[in-house]
Amino acid sequence: MKKALKLAKLGNGFVSPNPLVGCIIVKNNKIIATGYHQKFGENHAEVNAIKNCTENLEGSTLYVNLEPCCHYGKTPPCVDIIIKNKIKKVVISTLDPNPLVSGCGVKKLRDNNIDVEIGILAEEALKLNEVFFHYIKTNKPLCIVKSAISLDGKIATKYNESKWISNEKSRNLTHQYRHKYQSIMVGINTVINDNPLLTCRLSKNVSHPIRLIIDTNLKIPITSNVVKDKSSKTIIFTCNNDTSKINILTRECVDIIICPIKDNKVDLDFVIKKLGDLNISSVLVEGGGNLNFSLFKSNLVDKLKLFICPKIIGGIKSPSFVSGDGIDKLCDATNLFIYNIKSIENDILVEADVLKEV
Amino acid sequence: MKKALKLAKLGNGFVSPNPLVGCIIVKNNKIIATGYHQKFGENHAEVNAIKNCTENLEGSTLYVNLEPCCHYGKTPPCVDIIIKNKIKKVVISTLDPNPLVSGCGVKKLRDNNIDVEIGILAEEALKLNEVFFHYIKTNKPLCIVKSAISLDGKIATKYNESKWISNEKSRNLTHQYRHKYQSIMVGINTVINDNPLLTCRLSKNVSHPIRLIIDTNLKIPITSNVVKDKSSKTIIFTCNNDTSKINILTRECVDIIICPIKDNKVDLDFVIKKLGDLNISSVLVEGGGNLNFSLFKSNLVDKLKLFICPKIIGGIKSPSFVSGDGIDKLCDATNLFIYNIKSIENDILVEADVLKEV
Repeated sequence: MKKALKLAKLGNGFVSPNPLVGCIIVKNNKIIATGYHQKFGENHAEVNAIKNCTENLEGSTLYVNLEPCCHYGKTPPCVDIIIKNKIKKVVISTLDPNPLVSGCGVKKLRDNNIDVEIGILAEEALKLNEVFFHYIKTNKPLCIVKSAISLDGKIATKYNESKWISNEKSRNLTHQYRHKYQSIMVGINTVINDNPLLTCRLSKNVSHPIRLIIDTNLKIPITSNVVKDKSSKTIIFTCNNDTSKINILTRECVDIIICPIKDNKVDLDFVIKKLGDLNISSVLVEGGGNLNFSLFKSNLVDKLKLFICPKIIGGIKSPSFVSGDGIDKLCDATNLFIYNIKSIENDILVEADVLKEV
Repeated sequence: MKKALKLAKLGNGFVSPNPLVGCIIVKNNKIIATGYHQKFGENHAEVNAIKNCTENLEGSTLYVNLEPCCHYGKTPPCVDIIIKNKIKKVVISTLDPNPLVSGCGVKKLRDNNIDVEIGILAEEALKLNEVFFHYIKTNKPLCIVKSAISLDGKIATKYNESKWISNEKSRNLTHQYRHKYQSIMVGINTVINDNPLLTCRLSKNVSHPIRLIIDTNLKIPITSNVVKDKSSKTIIFTCNNDTSKINILTRECVDIIICPIKDNKVDLDFVIKKLGDLNISSVLVEGGGNLNFSLFKSNLVDKLKLFICPKIIGGIKSPSFVSGDGIDKLCDATNLFIYNIKSIENDILVEADVLKEV
């Protein structure tokens, strides 16, 4: 199963909003086939493994980190193919999280006298498909805020110089996140101040995240990199219905989504819900401070990946990682559970889950 | 030697600006005496060990973490007593850091045919007496900035609520610092906003740090806890020569030191130098943001102890751990070397040394 999970990871960045799935087939203590889900809309892992196999599958054992599907989606049900090939036993890490089909695959296999074992390396499998499980359960994307700050919480000097607070290895990790997560969100001030590309700049075989710009008043300069660059799609969320500007942007292949207004800003609850409807299962938020605060305040953040860098910047006017209005009382603070602290050379990476009130 | 270092620590909080020293005497593979430096101005560790010994010391080996002194200070030279008692061998962690006497003790012992070994657990011994070594070499106190911040670098909400950002265990550690370090420094805004006592609130046998208030315009309310409370001395550093207020404060046993002005504030270079002259070997700085920034900017901070707590506060108006003017360019940032990252339950303690330009 460890091998299956390792295989599954090869699909990272290419299968969203589908899950990462790997499959190994064993017969007489020998691996006779392997496969993984490679690309959204294409074959599932089990089908790839079975297709890759040149030996007779009868009596073999199939290991897969997610319950095989029993329904017709973009591809035919995997359980039917397993049954047809007379596989003897199926070992699964976790059931399908979708309550409508969870357990159906297992039932059908057992009804056909196939031995099924469930729960092997379940925790690792859940972690691997954290995004998928979240998305299936909530129909909203997993929202991950990422930032690189000085020890005093600043993301730039008072003159907006931010290149670079974090070290090269940390910045490389950020690009891995951009590959892994399906979309990237910034506020309009970040576009205006930094004119970022928001692409994934790893050396090879990468997927660029869909760019999401929160721009209440549609202030975006039409010459921005996120408008001009076509290596990924750009979607602007705005409350401004300025037809002529929208036309210009649409001609540049930028999507515009008109949103309801809340507290004089784009309603972020609406945005996150909308992203779910658009089949976007994860969003990496790269600030700035105002957008970060609005997301935290609206209780829309699920995870935090914070690079804390060994510098002191200071300054009342230097932008902080979370700005906006701030909370009134300490009891209103967003609380997090820090599940990992890691040294990235001289930076510290803190990974935390937002604790949600139930 | 490990035992000697452990003994030395018992003097923590009571011997400043003297070093922490422990001593063990061994004869025929048996510890026959132990001693440590207990209180500033009283017997050195070696003398205490020798006095505690009821057996004949002739032919024994003495372990001590710092070179025995060879000069008359508040007590007679330890080397003379070692020689007189016919101790055969002396094992030392480090030489005396004072260049005027470093090596003198060893030389006198060897001149008297006593076998001397140097360097055992030297690193631990240096770390134990970090404050003493710094003070002897620079004649200035070791300056340690301590703060408790949210993940976004805030020390309070916009309404100045700060109780409590850190957890109980972290706050307890802070009180251990107040016991360990000889003085504690805050800015006048902290006195006005929080009216702190700045005492060490551990349960038993503690030493309270000397309170140092940076108060350029002598705005301190005469009813402040730091004025009224007599459990420790308070020194105010000011540029304001208001005789009548100074008289009131002096009657309350508060010391006033009139300082030169620099950038419209108390000249902190002067303050740190002055503290050295007053035999203060360590200063724990507990902010707020303006004082912290001025100290970092003036390159006066040696160490940082930062409790990072799993909360998000946000807000442009919420005070940050380092505020003031801030640096102009990223290359002007204070750089630090993080030598320890530790989980204090759900808080993170980051310990770092400021990297000084040579």
